[in-house]
Amino acid sequence: MKAYDIIIIGGGPAGMNAAMYAARKELRAVVVTTDFGGQILLTSEIENYLGFPSISGFELADKMEAHVRQYPVDFETASVETLTRQEDGTFAAHLDDGQDIVGKACIVTAGKRSRTLDIPGEAAFTGRGVSYCATCDGPFYRNKTVAVVGGGDSAVQAAIELAAISPKVYLLVRSRIRAQEILVKRMQEHDNIDVRIGCVPERIEGTKKIESVTVKYTETGETETIPVEGCFVEAGGIPNNGFLPAEVQMNRAGEIVTDKEGRTNVPGLFAAGDVTDGPYKQVIIAAGEGAAAALSAHEYLLMHA
Amino acid sequence: MKAYDIIIIGGGPAGMNAAMYAARKELRAVVVTTDFGGQILLTSEIENYLGFPSISGFELADKMEAHVRQYPVDFETASVETLTRQEDGTFAAHLDDGQDIVGKACIVTAGKRSRTLDIPGEAAFTGRGVSYCATCDGPFYRNKTVAVVGGGDSAVQAAIELAAISPKVYLLVRSRIRAQEILVKRMQEHDNIDVRIGCVPERIEGTKKIESVTVKYTETGETETIPVEGCFVEAGGIPNNGFLPAEVQMNRAGEIVTDKEGRTNVPGLFAAGDVTDGPYKQVIIAAGEGAAAALSAHEYLLMHA
Repeated sequence: MKAYDIIIIGGGPAGMNAAMYAARKELRAVVVTTDFGGQILLTSEIENYLGFPSISGFELADKMEAHVRQYPVDFETASVETLTRQEDGTFAAHLDDGQDIVGKACIVTAGKRSRTLDIPGEAAFTGRGVSYCATCDGPFYRNKTVAVVGGGDSAVQAAIELAAISPKVYLLVRSRIRAQEILVKRMQEHDNIDVRIGCVPERIEGTKKIESVTVKYTETGETETIPVEGCFVEAGGIPNNGFLPAEVQMNRAGEIVTDKEGRTNVPGLFAAGDVTDGPYKQVIIAAGEGAAAALSAHEYLLMHA
Repeated sequence: MKAYDIIIIGGGPAGMNAAMYAARKELRAVVVTTDFGGQILLTSEIENYLGFPSISGFELADKMEAHVRQYPVDFETASVETLTRQEDGTFAAHLDDGQDIVGKACIVTAGKRSRTLDIPGEAAFTGRGVSYCATCDGPFYRNKTVAVVGGGDSAVQAAIELAAISPKVYLLVRSRIRAQEILVKRMQEHDNIDVRIGCVPERIEGTKKIESVTVKYTETGETETIPVEGCFVEAGGIPNNGFLPAEVQMNRAGEIVTDKEGRTNVPGLFAAGDVTDGPYKQVIIAAGEGAAAALSAHEYLLMHA
């Protein structure tokens, strides 16, 4: 069984930075991940990572990976199925490729995944008109009318991006727009974005590909079938916490409760980035938290290992 | 009197990122600072800012400044002499150029400054052999024997840098080395670094320029006069908190106590970076905290302004 000082679960900015900081502390670290970059791989353009005025998500992920790979860090291309704190205080991770690895400490940087709408037609048309990544799939919808579901930054950003290539973009917002003002302002410069506030998607219909989204307006109770050829679901994220031991304290959203230095309620278990209960899901914040978690883990190992 | 949504005090990574995030939130922000970059300007090479495997402090500061200047942010080249929370909840800053500015919220990112030894000769020889920045002044000491005082990252890093150009470098450590293992390891590769543990500098002597540092060994009580032509004081930092109102809660080191989102105990007052009570003084952590403080300030203004 492979044994490490630190197991890092997740390969986004938090995980990569934790790995770099751990390696600089001469700790033997392994990163268990299925990709390098996490959610930034789903972002076309990043303008708010200090030092890079504008960079694509892929390019920033590449730079981060190249940086981390300068250090002696191991990588396992896998997902963690279960994580257990053993009696001796070490952490055992069972991977979906069948491997078991053990670490004296563990940093969870597993991020979050897209929230689904759970309405009829959604699953059936996923990949045939329903998408969870406007950045990835947007280009396929040139000259097609599309809908974006959601009211946060990612939804408004998706609407802006799609407005540049689509004749008409519906933004379907359940309650209110929660996006940054700068994004809302930019959105308002596009007169082909039709914002519908207070509507809930009820079903997605079509034949081979999707043909419409039907929404219900909460105030009037009326329904409307909007003809679209694409539906982008940008309805927020769910923390990837399924593998965690039951004793880990989480908030109601399922995010891991951490202190300022990335400690959880479980000794030796740290967390950073979007999987934690910090309200601001930003690349630079995740990276900073990854550094802090690694430095906290290093201190923990000095004291306990 | 100039009025802003947010006054940001300090122009290091935390302040610059706070300004960028504030501007992206369409807030009118001013940065009051005497430099762009803060302490990274005193660092020759930065290897742990994720995305830049190796970059000089000056170059990283330039990139950060260029990034921030793409946004409509005001700058005042000045220091804050006093900051007051007024009866209406706004913050008034009196600058050392005589100006008064007011903000609905305030983010303190004033960083820290070098700690002095406060021993005879130190002040007299500052600039004539005594330096607080090995990166800035090191090149002047080529082929000269020098001492570095301190046991943290910056002291060990300074010793490594100086060892490349000096015949002999004394590292004078009061109690123990607290630097990162990777730095200690690198230091051990240089056989011209003479590490003296458990010694306290007592006085600095010379004529026109410094000629020696006298230390006392704590265990034996013996003193030794070490002939050097340069003495680099790398003994940690003192938070720049002199301008703050008395009601701001600080820890015993004078660092501002903040929560995970950069809030202080004073409504509308936020803080980020090295001036806060976070134990890890790292560029990427400061930048992340600057973003979080700006987003917290934005939320505060939505609720209160």
